[in-house]
Amino acid sequence: MKHEKYLSSIYSDGTVEYVSNPTPERMETVKIRLKVAKAMPVDHIWIRVVRNGTHQLIGMEKETADAGVKTADSESPEYYHADVVVTENALRYQFLILTEGILYYYSQRGVRKNQWDQIYDFVLLTDYQPPSWVKQAVFYQILPDRFYNGDPSLDVADGEYTMNGNASYHVRDWNTPAAPFEQAYCMDFYGGDLVGIRKKIPYLKELGITAIYLNPIFYAPSVHKYDCIDYEVIDPHLGGEEELENLSKALHENGMHLVLDISINHTGVAHKWFNRDNLFFDASVGAYQNPDSIEREYYHFEKEGKYDCWAGVDTLPVLNYCSQKLRDKLYQSEDSVLKKWLREPYQIDGWRFDVADEMCKNNAIQMDMEVWPQIRESIRAENPDAYILAESWTDNAKYLQGDCWDASMNYYGFARLLRRFLGLPDPYYWNEPDLCDMSLPIDAESFRDGVMDYLARIPFVFWQQQYNLLNSHDMGRLAHYSIHLGDYRGAVIMLFTMVGIPSVYYGDEAGIKGWTGGFEGARYPMPWDEEERDETMFLLYQKLAKLRRLEAAFSEGGFRFLYTKGKVIAFARTHFDRSWVTVVSISDHKEQVRLPVWMIREQNSKDVFGTDLIWTDCSETEITLKANPHTTYLFCV
Amino acid sequence: MKHEKYLSSIYSDGTVEYVSNPTPERMETVKIRLKVAKAMPVDHIWIRVVRNGTHQLIGMEKETADAGVKTADSESPEYYHADVVVTENALRYQFLILTEGILYYYSQRGVRKNQWDQIYDFVLLTDYQPPSWVKQAVFYQILPDRFYNGDPSLDVADGEYTMNGNASYHVRDWNTPAAPFEQAYCMDFYGGDLVGIRKKIPYLKELGITAIYLNPIFYAPSVHKYDCIDYEVIDPHLGGEEELENLSKALHENGMHLVLDISINHTGVAHKWFNRDNLFFDASVGAYQNPDSIEREYYHFEKEGKYDCWAGVDTLPVLNYCSQKLRDKLYQSEDSVLKKWLREPYQIDGWRFDVADEMCKNNAIQMDMEVWPQIRESIRAENPDAYILAESWTDNAKYLQGDCWDASMNYYGFARLLRRFLGLPDPYYWNEPDLCDMSLPIDAESFRDGVMDYLARIPFVFWQQQYNLLNSHDMGRLAHYSIHLGDYRGAVIMLFTMVGIPSVYYGDEAGIKGWTGGFEGARYPMPWDEEERDETMFLLYQKLAKLRRLEAAFSEGGFRFLYTKGKVIAFARTHFDRSWVTVVSISDHKEQVRLPVWMIREQNSKDVFGTDLIWTDCSETEITLKANPHTTYLFCV
Repeated sequence: MKHEKYLSSIYSDGTVEYVSNPTPERMETVKIRLKVAKAMPVDHIWIRVVRNGTHQLIGMEKETADAGVKTADSESPEYYHADVVVTENALRYQFLILTEGILYYYSQRGVRKNQWDQIYDFVLLTDYQPPSWVKQAVFYQILPDRFYNGDPSLDVADGEYTMNGNASYHVRDWNTPAAPFEQAYCMDFYGGDLVGIRKKIPYLKELGITAIYLNPIFYAPSVHKYDCIDYEVIDPHLGGEEELENLSKALHENGMHLVLDISINHTGVAHKWFNRDNLFFDASVGAYQNPDSIEREYYHFEKEGKYDCWAGVDTLPVLNYCSQKLRDKLYQSEDSVLKKWLREPYQIDGWRFDVADEMCKNNAIQMDMEVWPQIRESIRAENPDAYILAESWTDNAKYLQGDCWDASMNYYGFARLLRRFLGLPDPYYWNEPDLCDMSLPIDAESFRDGVMDYLARIPFVFWQQQYNLLNSHDMGRLAHYSIHLGDYRGAVIMLFTMVGIPSVYYGDEAGIKGWTGGFEGARYPMPWDEEERDETMFLLYQKLAKLRRLEAAFSEGGFRFLYTKGKVIAFARTHFDRSWVTVVSISDHKEQVRLPVWMIREQNSKDVFGTDLIWTDCSETEITLKANPHTTYLFCV
Repeated sequence: MKHEKYLSSIYSDGTVEYVSNPTPERMETVKIRLKVAKAMPVDHIWIRVVRNGTHQLIGMEKETADAGVKTADSESPEYYHADVVVTENALRYQFLILTEGILYYYSQRGVRKNQWDQIYDFVLLTDYQPPSWVKQAVFYQILPDRFYNGDPSLDVADGEYTMNGNASYHVRDWNTPAAPFEQAYCMDFYGGDLVGIRKKIPYLKELGITAIYLNPIFYAPSVHKYDCIDYEVIDPHLGGEEELENLSKALHENGMHLVLDISINHTGVAHKWFNRDNLFFDASVGAYQNPDSIEREYYHFEKEGKYDCWAGVDTLPVLNYCSQKLRDKLYQSEDSVLKKWLREPYQIDGWRFDVADEMCKNNAIQMDMEVWPQIRESIRAENPDAYILAESWTDNAKYLQGDCWDASMNYYGFARLLRRFLGLPDPYYWNEPDLCDMSLPIDAESFRDGVMDYLARIPFVFWQQQYNLLNSHDMGRLAHYSIHLGDYRGAVIMLFTMVGIPSVYYGDEAGIKGWTGGFEGARYPMPWDEEERDETMFLLYQKLAKLRRLEAAFSEGGFRFLYTKGKVIAFARTHFDRSWVTVVSISDHKEQVRLPVWMIREQNSKDVFGTDLIWTDCSETEITLKANPHTTYLFCV
């Protein structure tokens, strides 16, 4: 058993605690460190690097006490280090640890006797610079129509649009439900706009928000605006270009960042490039009616009138990236769409790409690995500090290697797993009748494996900027489900304390629900009346946002699971001498949670929320927390 | 427990038993099957495919008894199937199984409650055709100088070469050892040649060999010939072009295939393109002395006289694939090196590439993923049935996805793991003083994990043609180590029965040893005197080679582990109604080996070698084999 405990002490990561420069230049010498328990009998420790296809073992040396290492007792940590030259554009490494005559391999995936596949290497990238502001961010996602009506004069007029033969109806009274056909066609407007967001900046600051992600605001008839008709125009009902400029300026003056959502996998059927029904443009423009138009090649036309569309929805024709002209329009030319909004006077701080992992794919021709590096280069050329955030629900590790995205919306490695740990359905199956409402519980061990299988395959620099979320416009809200309030609270604390950045979906902090069997259910209007708001929830979010901003462990720190068993998850965010531990129990019973002592440097008596911490069985090597049912603890060590 | 047994019955693979066409055309409809225990309560089974980045669930239907399924008893297998259109150049899929209200995911990596990352997908490729002859092959690797002297008039003359200031000495008597300096510089010739190999074809046929892999035969001074001086000339001491032509013709007449080894990562320092010391060519040619020569760009010169070389060995300058001229010379032009030898009159059947995973890599510029598809295309254009075999000791799954290699020498997923299972050192660390002689044992579970972590990340079509090996010119022979003869025998049986193809390193079948602390030790001359040969070993290899050729389960069948615990490994090669099971025990004690009954359709009383099979505890769902210490069983079911 002692031997196993030694093994669990082995640790390194991509933070400055373990790597002298996480984003080095090529040919730079980097000092890499590894931590082990002092008492571990070390025969030899090597870093294994890969250079030009050959593996090399580089011996690591023990750091002397002079180098700042604590020498309190035999169970305290001890550091080994080696200087390594970064000879290629990526330095890939693992560790080999020989202890008591047995050789162990340590990769991002953990410690074992077998060699690990190279997909689990620790990786330092030389050609990748993360956006400077993202890892400190607390995001807030807003569906603009549903947030706050800042200027009623901008509202959609009754009957202004006609879609699918039905005239639209504008709900001016927040309590009057929209007609069914309006809901069905996403024409049930509530009048929120960019002016409203600007007016609510003080509210967002009070909550502790530092960055906003807006669902699409480009000219489009629907509420959600994923059916764009012109990427170069801000929807006039949201306030047009002028109000985007005002909003961006106001956010920046308040030290906040702005990310816009764009769907360039498909346009709306009424887009000026496509123009199927002449709703917004006359018949002289567009690919649909004119096979000789410039824009014809922007889409996938098979025969006259037949075109590829997203998920079988014929109002959303898919864009064709075989067209160089389309690429120019969207991202490559100086006046391209993606560059325009990054530039003065709008100066947005990043892009969220809708259905990003479906883009540039058309059966025999899969252009994703060609197009994404181009998109990245164009964006970075305009704003080297812009955040490239991608919607993706499934395994997307191949896009997080330095040449494509900066982050994914972390459904795959966080939201989906967490919902299942809580005993809820997997929101990814919203469209599968047999699975959409089915509880698909996983235990803590499976949660850990799901998280680590994914994280271990992407360089650490991406761990810190993954966009973690509990809710979004595409999932029924967690508050809708009948789960224990203590478990809900645990989920919120995990959102803010796991590695990656937290995002709040508008209204989560007010405790609003929403799930009527479809997406619209997660798009309820924001309640501004105090009686409709859950103040306790607001205070929880506010407290966590503040911790997230003030405590470097959350933005800069390492991440490791300490304990995962059944219905209990414990993990640490490590950062030199000030680390944080989260212990989540969703159990109906009291649980004994054993925590390795080299992570727990002090034994506090209360956690950050004032919850009593009951310690038992404090041995030399580990201590045990008595966790109450449905309780989450967060404490600093 | 019953539930877990159901789970272990879930199975599919890339063979024709489970996929109507393992190498389909695009837009072809493929029938995909899944096997489960008949007694398993199935709520729903889906295939999950990925199309243009979107996941789709396709429901699977139960096959009726009419479709040829046995209905003997409730524990017999049952099949589900679905017709799936291959819309892209690869069809990637997993299975979702809903049983007793719990959802399981099944990928190439196994069954679990968590979704599996896409790296573990089952994959059918449309743009990849495997060489038709490889999966039936039994290979034999020959280091020509050490095999058989068929024509003494070809022998190197005493003092013919001078290397490093020492004249070479030719050992004509097999029993007279070479001088130390000759061994050190690999100048200790034994006179083997291509004529000798041709003369021994009857011997190889008797053993059961169907394909030969020859270590390099291109013009080069050393015994091993990895220091080539001209890729367009066969070494005259081996018989020159004429004898290659004769050998190739004779092999093909005997239904055998020929693969040649080439080192185009580096040349010898005396190569006509480099010509450092004017040993074979005059000073008018070569990159070393003439910076203005055409060939200068074939290498990496930094300053006058300073050049990149392989592993720090200054006699092996590394080739520079930035040079388009070099690429033309080696593989792109019609008269290129790789094409020349594939063509009449030589007609070789494939290439083995030395240090393949180090090729085309030069610090900042890593060209491997650009060059390998070009090499592949050039080879396939000349001979669509050629085998592209790569030396690689580490994780190389990225090269086995259809666009680069056909197979690797399976050190990583077989030889290294097997040696460790046997309690021996990892041969990969031959050059690491602290590790080269250290026993690094792993248990059966780790062996299984190592094999499956690797295989699960490559399409099944590559499983069947991986080049498995126990020994090679680069490892001390297994027979050198003091392991139990029963364990040695078990290793040989695993070589022939695991998925992939078996290769015999010349002399293994004679039981020769070899390990004198360096590579030369594994290159002892072949003993042709019957007294020096181990007849029992020959008969074992012969019997296994025959089984391998005659039993489709080994060349065409599926592969799954049945039992792995401590010192016992059991696995099956499945093929419709005639499957084979290998049970390897390296334990010092009798072991109870539980085998799932759906794999064991009959209970024989003797295995193929006449060993008694003692069955106990034959329940409805599983049976138990009593395995004797250090015993391996191989039986048909």
